[in-house]
Amino acid sequence: MQAARYTGNKTFDVVEGSKVAPKAGEVCIKVGFAGICGTDMHIYHGVMDKRVSIPQTIGHEMSGIVAEVGDGVTDYSPGDRVVVRPLDHCGECPACDAGHSHVCHNLKFMGIDTTGAFQSFWTVKSRTLHKLPENVSLKQGALVEPLSVACHDVSRAGLKAGEKAVVLGGGPIGQLIAAVAKGIGAEVMVSEVNADRLAFSEKLGFETVDPTKQDIGEVVKEWTNGKGADVVFEVTGVQPAVDTMTEIAAVRGRICMVAIHSEKPQVNLFHFFWKELELVGARVYEAKDFDQAIDLISSGKITIDNFISSVSPLDKIGDAFAGIDLNPAGMKTLIDCGAEQ
Amino acid sequence: MQAARYTGNKTFDVVEGSKVAPKAGEVCIKVGFAGICGTDMHIYHGVMDKRVSIPQTIGHEMSGIVAEVGDGVTDYSPGDRVVVRPLDHCGECPACDAGHSHVCHNLKFMGIDTTGAFQSFWTVKSRTLHKLPENVSLKQGALVEPLSVACHDVSRAGLKAGEKAVVLGGGPIGQLIAAVAKGIGAEVMVSEVNADRLAFSEKLGFETVDPTKQDIGEVVKEWTNGKGADVVFEVTGVQPAVDTMTEIAAVRGRICMVAIHSEKPQVNLFHFFWKELELVGARVYEAKDFDQAIDLISSGKITIDNFISSVSPLDKIGDAFAGIDLNPAGMKTLIDCGAEQ
Repeated sequence: MQAARYTGNKTFDVVEGSKVAPKAGEVCIKVGFAGICGTDMHIYHGVMDKRVSIPQTIGHEMSGIVAEVGDGVTDYSPGDRVVVRPLDHCGECPACDAGHSHVCHNLKFMGIDTTGAFQSFWTVKSRTLHKLPENVSLKQGALVEPLSVACHDVSRAGLKAGEKAVVLGGGPIGQLIAAVAKGIGAEVMVSEVNADRLAFSEKLGFETVDPTKQDIGEVVKEWTNGKGADVVFEVTGVQPAVDTMTEIAAVRGRICMVAIHSEKPQVNLFHFFWKELELVGARVYEAKDFDQAIDLISSGKITIDNFISSVSPLDKIGDAFAGIDLNPAGMKTLIDCGAEQ
Repeated sequence: MQAARYTGNKTFDVVEGSKVAPKAGEVCIKVGFAGICGTDMHIYHGVMDKRVSIPQTIGHEMSGIVAEVGDGVTDYSPGDRVVVRPLDHCGECPACDAGHSHVCHNLKFMGIDTTGAFQSFWTVKSRTLHKLPENVSLKQGALVEPLSVACHDVSRAGLKAGEKAVVLGGGPIGQLIAAVAKGIGAEVMVSEVNADRLAFSEKLGFETVDPTKQDIGEVVKEWTNGKGADVVFEVTGVQPAVDTMTEIAAVRGRICMVAIHSEKPQVNLFHFFWKELELVGARVYEAKDFDQAIDLISSGKITIDNFISSVSPLDKIGDAFAGIDLNPAGMKTLIDCGAEQ
């Protein structure tokens, strides 16, 4: 079997790995496709070298086929087509006690804090698995994880059919949020500065605005007949979007914080008071978000194939990562890890 | 009849006013007591001179007795003891359409944007009235409006019995929030730097912390067995409290923004993402908050008399305002506007 390993400094090697036999409660999966996440790009750029254990096999957006099950695993069998929800919680902290194990105080993110999916076989706890329906391909399955992020964001924001949502930032997660929002019957506008990403949004039928060319406050005001946006998703991580998010939100509007702000931006808290806004943080996903993501693809409410920009073989993983740096407007690059459809 | 008028530059005059006959849908109230709000102090200090129409009778925390009713008013009669919910909404904007008339786009705040209660008789729309039960005195009634602010804040935060809440800032509104929180069965800690206010909190049975003398993060961690606060109320308006609010909140904790931040403070949005925090803005109150405030006093769940620091006659209103500047740790100063109990 092959295993790609991040070895630091924008470099991967691909080595002969060893299949890990599943222990009790574990499942060994023959990996189909594994997508490259923005977080994987951060690792590639070296900004997470303190968190990962170099050399390390990373990757967490994947699909595959169950190859072997450990003792006590009764709900999965060899041949089952599955995806992994890559969260390993402690089960003992106050967050787990309160039923929020996805934001466990001691959460391990599989593929970052532990070994990941860019290899031929990946052995994980069976509690992390979700089955894929027959009409969802392994390529599509590799998009379930990022789509689950979007489902979680939309759920946290409480977005409902008929409401109007503005997504600030048209990268892969922003566009997936827009797709889920449209999929559940909301009207969606994407704010983005990159022309290729704006074109992608238009192709998917979203309203668009380039805030460097138009006054986004006026655009949203007109679009919403003076009300403002029912929901705003902040997916950029930059100060101008933080200024915009409170400006364009309606009275009692909800703002969902998806972006990771490493600096502390200035926030117009007066707008929160005056318009009784709500800000809701959203991190990763829960089991129900995976169920919804799989259903949105399976039911055809979202055409996920649009999001696959390219597919590379596992032994070309370094080129695939470098390619994303050269084409930041691309959506999702998949690594073909070998399992047959 | 007497009417006190703010004439600018920390000055009031008290003049012979004229009783305004109630038009259709209006009620003329003989004013009992009217409290001095923090907003009234801002007006007194001249910072709202662009918004008020000098000379103007201000004041909006009041109780009184119905003296006369206009045409079409059937639910109130002369002699009814009442309080006024001092909000005048337009009924036509998107916020009113959505049922949030208290944050109407064109909201007029009675006593700021229009004539207020520091006079012998006040004529208002009957839709703004709430009746006082027999066992609630007119003095207590003058506290219903600020107590309704606290009820609204606690309601917006979704605080429940058994949860732990930290109130940042022990001024009148902060202490009232703490009282409501305790009144509904939550455990409460007040964070305050003024020794007199801390003593007031202790007298009312709240946990206390002085963040200039103790590490509030550690204090809250210990108090909550490592979980963090279920709810944090930000009632200070200063940057250090904005830093604290995201630090001490539990995973999935809720932060209620009560303070008016005229500057844009730096906010740790990473904490919102990482702990899936919620920030909820709260402004004024709704009718149900007035109902709850009256019930909390009437049922004895809150001992509101503790909050009355002093009572001054209407013709000494200037001294009363000046006295608050000299004793910022006091809670509520009432103006006796003349209606008999």
